[in-house]
Amino acid sequence: MGVVIAFEGGEEKHRATIDALTALVEPDMARVNEAILQRAQSHVELIPELAGHLINSGGKRIRPMLTLAAARMCGYAGADHVRLATAVEFMHTATLLHDDVVDESDMRRGKQAARIIWGNQASVLVGDYLLGQAFKMMVETGSLESLRILSHAAAVIAEGEVLQLSVSQDTSTTEDAYLQVIGAKTAALFSAAAEVGAVIAARPKAEQAALESFGRNLGIAFQLIDDALDYSGKQALMGKSTGDDFRERKITLPVVLSFRRGNKEERSFWKRTLEEGDQTTDDLLYARKLMERHGAIADTIERAGHYGDIARDAMAIFPESEWKSALLEAVDFCVARAY
Amino acid sequence: MGVVIAFEGGEEKHRATIDALTALVEPDMARVNEAILQRAQSHVELIPELAGHLINSGGKRIRPMLTLAAARMCGYAGADHVRLATAVEFMHTATLLHDDVVDESDMRRGKQAARIIWGNQASVLVGDYLLGQAFKMMVETGSLESLRILSHAAAVIAEGEVLQLSVSQDTSTTEDAYLQVIGAKTAALFSAAAEVGAVIAARPKAEQAALESFGRNLGIAFQLIDDALDYSGKQALMGKSTGDDFRERKITLPVVLSFRRGNKEERSFWKRTLEEGDQTTDDLLYARKLMERHGAIADTIERAGHYGDIARDAMAIFPESEWKSALLEAVDFCVARAY
Repeated sequence: MGVVIAFEGGEEKHRATIDALTALVEPDMARVNEAILQRAQSHVELIPELAGHLINSGGKRIRPMLTLAAARMCGYAGADHVRLATAVEFMHTATLLHDDVVDESDMRRGKQAARIIWGNQASVLVGDYLLGQAFKMMVETGSLESLRILSHAAAVIAEGEVLQLSVSQDTSTTEDAYLQVIGAKTAALFSAAAEVGAVIAARPKAEQAALESFGRNLGIAFQLIDDALDYSGKQALMGKSTGDDFRERKITLPVVLSFRRGNKEERSFWKRTLEEGDQTTDDLLYARKLMERHGAIADTIERAGHYGDIARDAMAIFPESEWKSALLEAVDFCVARAY
Repeated sequence: MGVVIAFEGGEEKHRATIDALTALVEPDMARVNEAILQRAQSHVELIPELAGHLINSGGKRIRPMLTLAAARMCGYAGADHVRLATAVEFMHTATLLHDDVVDESDMRRGKQAARIIWGNQASVLVGDYLLGQAFKMMVETGSLESLRILSHAAAVIAEGEVLQLSVSQDTSTTEDAYLQVIGAKTAALFSAAAEVGAVIAARPKAEQAALESFGRNLGIAFQLIDDALDYSGKQALMGKSTGDDFRERKITLPVVLSFRRGNKEERSFWKRTLEEGDQTTDDLLYARKLMERHGAIADTIERAGHYGDIARDAMAIFPESEWKSALLEAVDFCVARAY
């Protein structure tokens, strides 16, 4: 009898990845990337220059991926899902450009924000241009229902951003109010991106609603994990530095929970650093310590898991397929990336 | 025999007014105003507050008027022209909000700019919200052709604004380059606003093209007269102070002409004041004097007259009607308001 040697990692549980989804959408995504480059063109050179800076900076393209996969899962075999996916990515890019101006951010995806290089003015206007191009592409599909869904999302996203302005720097924001903000500013586009996949495939209302719910709940989970990672993540994995939200004085769920669970002295700390913006070098470390003390990061991840569960259940009406499995695993991956 | 007394003004030529057009569109415009108020609503209070500030500040509503009148002239009897006209005004309002941020303007329509009261952030985001609402209304009409025209206009307008950023503060800008800028940033929306009137009335391509051309040329004339008035107009008539363009260092046609026609010393003056932004109290007066010397204002108005003529000729294919007469008189009024 020989000696059994346990290989390192041999007992590791299978970890969810996004690889299956990425591989499945790859051919379609290549067409989206082509369309992105083509539609960001303009005889006004500043436009492709600035748009390219952001587009080439390695975003995850998760929103257009949702549109492509949803359409394919619904059996769609045409070309309009590529147009819609490109439009969705342009809407997202436009939002990022405007967000950076609104948040006065210096960095985006690990690179200097466009507004730092080309100024706020160009960022506002190129965002407007991309939004116009997005609508042109939607019109080309001839799908009024997709146009209805995505134009509604555009209004809701902006509404959510204004709402965030109003609640910003208010440490006593409730969890409900915060969920309302991210429901609008993040989940609305996830939800529309998935829903139009069913629309373009001419699937029944129930499947459209299922994908709408899938996208919305995945979007909320995704945002909550982003919030957690901003305090706990490793910089290299995120393409952005941790602590950004703290420095930009954003009220996110880890803060909401820590503030509510904290004592008077701790609340003063949150007020000083986030409401008054009076921060010193050690404050981020102390913020993390308070979150640890109150389990705020762990509970934020748990809340994300809850929305991930709803997203998965929404998909139950679809028959099994490699597309469905890949989308479900993407939900797991999205939540698991926080561990 | 009595003595003939000449009444004061008795020999005055009939002056073109916009009154006929205003009176004709009044019932429809009341519905547009209602829709504007309704669609600028949101549970996020800042949105109607900020949007209302600009919407109630007495804009001329000339763009939605074009849509309403064009549709009516084409015999349209439905309700979708009101939706399109409201969408057009929202697109315009969104552009103004973003413009003020881009230009760092302090005033708009004789009131404090929204960005001064609520900040750049809210102005960017409420602009985005209004743009989203505009597209929602277009979708409600179910007219894909109108959506195509207006989404194209949205992209072209933004493109024109970016182009203006690139040429801004370049006193050697050519007249052609300047016309390209205003063709995009002003005329594109005038043209789309008029064209969709024919589209919604299901009129043939030739009539659609005629209104497109009418709107575009009227838009150029309108902008050129605005440029002239900014140096020559009376403050009270405009709802904005004269000299704004000079203070904001905008290169407009009166400047383009004065710079080209000026001597070396004069060109240094334009470079110092507009490119370098080094202005003293008497500079605006001296700028006016140079424009007077080179006939730059008079020639800007003459150029406007040229585009006004093209606009009028574009309308020739339509049969006579009170709507057509009112639109033609509006062109005359637009040019004549500079005298």
